[in-house]
Amino acid sequence: MSEFDAAIRLTDGTAELTDGWVIGEAVNGGVLMSLATKAASDALDAAGSHADPVAFSTTFLAAAQPGPAHVETQILRTGRSFSTAEVTISQGGTPCVRHTATFADLDANAEPVHLQEAPPELPDPELCVPASRGGFAEKIRLLDRLDMRIDPATVGWAIGQPAHDGEMRAWIRFADGREPDVLSLPFFLDALPPVTFTFGALGWAPTIAFSGHVRSRPEPGWLRMRITTRNVIGGLFEEDAVIWDSRDHVVAQSRQLAGVRMPSAPVPS
Amino acid sequence: MSEFDAAIRLTDGTAELTDGWVIGEAVNGGVLMSLATKAASDALDAAGSHADPVAFSTTFLAAAQPGPAHVETQILRTGRSFSTAEVTISQGGTPCVRHTATFADLDANAEPVHLQEAPPELPDPELCVPASRGGFAEKIRLLDRLDMRIDPATVGWAIGQPAHDGEMRAWIRFADGREPDVLSLPFFLDALPPVTFTFGALGWAPTIAFSGHVRSRPEPGWLRMRITTRNVIGGLFEEDAVIWDSRDHVVAQSRQLAGVRMPSAPVPS
Repeated sequence: MSEFDAAIRLTDGTAELTDGWVIGEAVNGGVLMSLATKAASDALDAAGSHADPVAFSTTFLAAAQPGPAHVETQILRTGRSFSTAEVTISQGGTPCVRHTATFADLDANAEPVHLQEAPPELPDPELCVPASRGGFAEKIRLLDRLDMRIDPATVGWAIGQPAHDGEMRAWIRFADGREPDVLSLPFFLDALPPVTFTFGALGWAPTIAFSGHVRSRPEPGWLRMRITTRNVIGGLFEEDAVIWDSRDHVVAQSRQLAGVRMPSAPVPS
Repeated sequence: MSEFDAAIRLTDGTAELTDGWVIGEAVNGGVLMSLATKAASDALDAAGSHADPVAFSTTFLAAAQPGPAHVETQILRTGRSFSTAEVTISQGGTPCVRHTATFADLDANAEPVHLQEAPPELPDPELCVPASRGGFAEKIRLLDRLDMRIDPATVGWAIGQPAHDGEMRAWIRFADGREPDVLSLPFFLDALPPVTFTFGALGWAPTIAFSGHVRSRPEPGWLRMRITTRNVIGGLFEEDAVIWDSRDHVVAQSRQLAGVRMPSAPVPS
């Protein structure tokens, strides 16, 4: 079993969160989003309904720590085209994550393609900057599970030359060779460093609310991502992410609201 | 009391949905989002917590009809900086809307402005195209409550010349002079015609999931909006919206996943 499948495994409504997926002291929110999506998918599948996520939204209520987590699933609707379930992940009776996800049959909702955002031009992975632990990223153990290659044009922040443009681009895949699928896309959508790194704000950017769409089933191989922000206001910013698969299809997109401590004086608007 | 305040009024957990806010046979989803946000805000305010929405997500489970609706609110967390509540709007025991909203003190989260999207250039309102009932819009009674002026450059679809570019821009305000506030922004975010009209797809585009951020408290006066889509895949599209107030500040943004029947053959990707 791959590291990721072990991380989102559920046994009798309990998941065992390990310290292999932490960022600092907390378990990565993306893993929790994929775990919650899997719980909802399993419940709907067992009810004979759709099992492919198409839209989800997640509110982060408290940081999750390594250890057991209770995962409770409630089916809100089963329909002909769409079905919805809600998942709460708790630890010690405290809810950490509230997650609502809507499911459909992606094979019936991936064609035809009328309009699709083109993937960004990226140097080949071997010409990009691998993200690995060490230095300020030492506590991001999650990076050991990933093969992430950041476009050199968007990684100036790592050498003290932030571009201040609110955009980062990267190749990404699991380090152990597990191929991407629809259940891993919620995780990948939040796997890059916060886009506020491009402003030189190299701190943790806690997610307040996250919403994502799965648009197509990914093909095996590298994923490409672009994350952007256009509004950093009063210590909050939105981060938009898009993921393309190896055949250039948009497979997922997301938007989150997160908090940031900006390092410098504001730019007058 | 303004028409909008009457529409989102709650008495002992019951709202009276009127036929003044319908699109076709169903009550507009935006009104339901503002109603749910108000219910959550009231509950948190009564609990002595934050009352300004900063992020919300809404899943539409069933169409709501004019008539009484039951509105149930559960506080999920009250915190120092952020508080979250969940709201379910039901009719006849059937849940229509599930809505999760996170609140803060917007006055503490609206300054400083480090980065902000500039508003689109729009002709003055009197040079734009007023959206009113009549023709195919006859059943959109909602339009009687709004003063909406669409940029002529983005309204070719109304005269059989869709631009096929996935962008619409407009001025918007309430017809009865009620000024915009944070509770009306969820409504405004979904008030324009679907952006898929720009592809000549002039049908209803049912929202599956909607998420929005309130970024700043709007000043009185006209709001400006831009809605866009970049991906229309397999009968589903995302619609992104941004709203600016009269002092050019971004006050809200949103993304929804909705369904569409496209009229023509797909463009090969």
